[in-house]
Amino acid sequence: MVSKKPSREDLLKTPIKMLDLGDKVSIGELVSGFSGTSFQARRLAQCVDIYRKMTDRDGTHTVLLGMSGALVAAGLRKLISDLIKMRLVDVITTTGAVVYQDFYQAMGYRHFKGDPNSDDVLLHSYMIDRIYDTYVDEDKFRETDVNIGKIMETLEPRKYSTREFLSILGERCLHDEDSILGNAYKSGIPIYCPAIADSSIGIGLSTAYKRQRESGKSMEEMFHLDTIRDNYEIAQIVHLSRATGAIYLGGGVPKNYINDAIVMADMLYGE
Amino acid sequence: MVSKKPSREDLLKTPIKMLDLGDKVSIGELVSGFSGTSFQARRLAQCVDIYRKMTDRDGTHTVLLGMSGALVAAGLRKLISDLIKMRLVDVITTTGAVVYQDFYQAMGYRHFKGDPNSDDVLLHSYMIDRIYDTYVDEDKFRETDVNIGKIMETLEPRKYSTREFLSILGERCLHDEDSILGNAYKSGIPIYCPAIADSSIGIGLSTAYKRQRESGKSMEEMFHLDTIRDNYEIAQIVHLSRATGAIYLGGGVPKNYINDAIVMADMLYGE
Amino acid sequence: MVSKKPSREDLLKTPIKMLDLGDKVSIGELVSGFSGTSFQARRLAQCVDIYRKMTDRDGTHTVLLGMSGALVAAGLRKLISDLIKMRLVDVITTTGAVVYQDFYQAMGYRHFKGDPNSDDVLLHSYMIDRIYDTYVDEDKFRETDVNIGKIMETLEPRKYSTREFLSILGERCLHDEDSILGNAYKSGIPIYCPAIADSSIGIGLSTAYKRQRESGKSMEEMFHLDTIRDNYEIAQIVHLSRATGAIYLGGGVPKNYINDAIVMADMLYGE
Amino acid sequence: MVSKKPSREDLLKTPIKMLDLGDKVSIGELVSGFSGTSFQARRLAQCVDIYRKMTDRDGTHTVLLGMSGALVAAGLRKLISDLIKMRLVDVITTTGAVVYQDFYQAMGYRHFKGDPNSDDVLLHSYMIDRIYDTYVDEDKFRETDVNIGKIMETLEPRKYSTREFLSILGERCLHDEDSILGNAYKSGIPIYCPAIADSSIGIGLSTAYKRQRESGKSMEEMFHLDTIRDNYEIAQIVHLSRATGAIYLGGGVPKNYINDAIVMADMLYGE
Repeated sequence: MVSKKPSREDLLKTPIKMLDLGDKVSIGELVSGFSGTSFQARRLAQCVDIYRKMTDRDGTHTVLLGMSGALVAAGLRKLISDLIKMRLVDVITTTGAVVYQDFYQAMGYRHFKGDPNSDDVLLHSYMIDRIYDTYVDEDKFRETDVNIGKIMETLEPRKYSTREFLSILGERCLHDEDSILGNAYKSGIPIYCPAIADSSIGIGLSTAYKRQRESGKSMEEMFHLDTIRDNYEIAQIVHLSRATGAIYLGGGVPKNYINDAIVMADMLYGE
Repeated sequence: MVSKKPSREDLLKTPIKMLDLGDKVSIGELVSGFSGTSFQARRLAQCVDIYRKMTDRDGTHTVLLGMSGALVAAGLRKLISDLIKMRLVDVITTTGAVVYQDFYQAMGYRHFKGDPNSDDVLLHSYMIDRIYDTYVDEDKFRETDVNIGKIMETLEPRKYSTREFLSILGERCLHDEDSILGNAYKSGIPIYCPAIADSSIGIGLSTAYKRQRESGKSMEEMFHLDTIRDNYEIAQIVHLSRATGAIYLGGGVPKNYINDAIVMADMLYGE
Repeated sequence: MVSKKPSREDLLKTPIKMLDLGDKVSIGELVSGFSGTSFQARRLAQCVDIYRKMTDRDGTHTVLLGMSGALVAAGLRKLISDLIKMRLVDVITTTGAVVYQDFYQAMGYRHFKGDPNSDDVLLHSYMIDRIYDTYVDEDKFRETDVNIGKIMETLEPRKYSTREFLSILGERCLHDEDSILGNAYKSGIPIYCPAIADSSIGIGLSTAYKRQRESGKSMEEMFHLDTIRDNYEIAQIVHLSRATGAIYLGGGVPKNYINDAIVMADMLYGE
Repeated sequence: MVSKKPSREDLLKTPIKMLDLGDKVSIGELVSGFSGTSFQARRLAQCVDIYRKMTDRDGTHTVLLGMSGALVAAGLRKLISDLIKMRLVDVITTTGAVVYQDFYQAMGYRHFKGDPNSDDVLLHSYMIDRIYDTYVDEDKFRETDVNIGKIMETLEPRKYSTREFLSILGERCLHDEDSILGNAYKSGIPIYCPAIADSSIGIGLSTAYKRQRESGKSMEEMFHLDTIRDNYEIAQIVHLSRATGAIYLGGGVPKNYINDAIVMADMLYGE
């Protein structure tokens, strides 16, 4: 990459534009204003520009969304569902917690405003969980865990990708128009959860696993999640995409998995 | 503080409300929406509520604003000036950099968009400074430094609080309607800068200090900044306030100084 | 929990002891010195105390170690192996990267010192990966990926927990006395990797998965990782432990998984 | 700067060396071991190397130490004094808190181990301050503040740099062999504190300032701190140094001030 040495004038060319909120009140105007400024504000404006290009109707990008953290408990459930409904994302990778909390809400249960300095011993005695400043009803969580285990027991005992299993849960959320799982099911958006064992969904499935083992079922007669099949699927999606783009809400496995999907496509299909 | 043990129902009372941006596009609606959610979003909504109470017209709060970081270079100059014009703050504490960059802009000079990965050796050869992704014309900076030193030399050689000296600079910025110093001067808002020596203003004053020393002036004949006088003044402001509130843009000395001002008022006037 | 209100004297009882490195040169003396100080230094000394209690020979704790991040690439491989050899941990949960890098080293390959500001386009052209300031030979990585896929193809086509599969890899590392996988195999220390699909091990297994699919094998005839079985196993370990303790090197899934293991034990075995 | 494109072999030349604590127990061996590893550990080893070069006896570096944060309350007082005694630093810049806490300890008062989750309302009722997990006796603090004010009132009413005033405090700490101020006085190490107004020392001086004002003294008859004189002094130190090196314990004003001192030397003496 040969680049000509810029002159002093080249470098001192674009003055910072002071943010002016005078009569600009919309979120869009705020972010546009950020583009003339510095630091993270300018970056955010750049992200919005890039995202706009990725989701342009004439575009050919496959947009992958990686999600981690207590996003549903924190109040972002409807926003994420709107992203799906408006087709602003095409593929989702997630921690189990996000889709679990979505399923829990679709069952009619809620998360509650709490206090980060609360008495955790008292909360524990009430079977209330705390996620920083947000409370969860642990009794209802356990009901939901067991419920997920029971759903699994109704399924044909074969191998499922997490995408397939989460679409089965999604079908049961169709009554809730704000459900992430429900809207993904309706829109045919695949959701991958490679670390699903490490979540309340995984705990629910473990309770069913134990019951099946204790009932004498062989490994072959049991329901089974196949996360390597997830890899095989997402590698094909990337391989067949003309271009890809990614959005990350939080880091961890979902972010890394989207990055790894590019390598998988390369290794499996020799991009 | 005796508090009755809350019941389980007390604790699981207020469900998290999912953020809904459907047709809500204003910044105000966004922040209102945050109040029903969790984590920093909820906190931000609480901050806005508290700030609204502090700045209520019928209120009696003295609002102190602490500023640090390259806020003007980053594009917040007009916003800060608007806070002053709208009388949403009453007293300002700041690092020297913020008011220096404001004065530099009032002289007609600019900050420029840059690249955080630029070739710093090249920039140095051009006398361009870099603040992360923002460039500054070091030649114009030095002109400004020297200019500030010369202003000092025109002043009666006595002791000045930083508030008094910054109001003298402010008077010279009246032509620039977006100037922080200029608007503070017009509105009678005091600006304190306890670490003023550690800034380009301090450097400018040092050049004048050296000239005066070398011209044989005695210490008594020289201009003098008296930061302990700042303490004496701000302690009186706090003492005479019916209530105080604070906003912090960045931390460091300006934030600590506002906190210390409460202790000063207590020590000096026995609140 | 009724606690008597402490008196002023109760609170101002234990003076901070100034750290004195005079003639104290050992790591142990440094950390002991930390116990008399404040902030993270005091915390670190507390962690060492707690860890000492957990690993006391007469103790009955099961010590779980959670690992994430490029620990082997960064130079901690021998330390982690020493923890295993000295039996200072009993159960390991990890990201795939840690055990993958260990296996890669056992194949005779190395990680290299690099520069965080290097020319990534050049590195890419050389098939060199960069982990901040550390280089990896991507050609050798791909050899290793494919190698892991081939190992899988030699195995009986049934369901394996990640613990079982990683012990199979460990058996192949016995020649390397510093190998984490090898030493865990020798010591019978189980290693769980619930997000194994999201790693180079997962990529290697995916290449084999694709070959098997394309060779016309049915799902039932294929090798299979069963991460819900991991849950079932680790819940039993926790259930059968008289007490548990945890050490976390990094966060993410391995840390969360250890925490979840307590809930799993409770849900499955009604602690 | 023309640099030849490195070859693949050039880049993959230096393998990471696994840290081996086998029988290496000294702090020095630990840090040496870090030099073969990655990330912050490697950086720390590099810092030690650079520091060793700076403090080499045959060297000609002037070593500037910048300090901020509750370093004395946290237990580092003796270590910092040892740096001075061993002449491993030549010039100090600091926040007021560090030297204030040192003076407070020299008066025979102590900091105490506390609990970050303590009942702050109770602490307040006892006049106990809390710095995270460390308690301070606010009554003794106020005594010390007032004491500092009284020292000022005994001084000839002229202008002092903070360096000069802190050496006057240092002379009163000679009885305490672990005192930072005392050892700096003995060794002739200058200590600069450009934000001194923003500290308990500043508060103490403000109480005296008020008394003097109320007693009818004119500004000219009053003791006076001149932080621009600090600039003038430190610029000369840098100007007369053959080379400079810096160590930062914490950031903020002391770090920025050392960086600015280079610019001051350039502006005042045209390096």
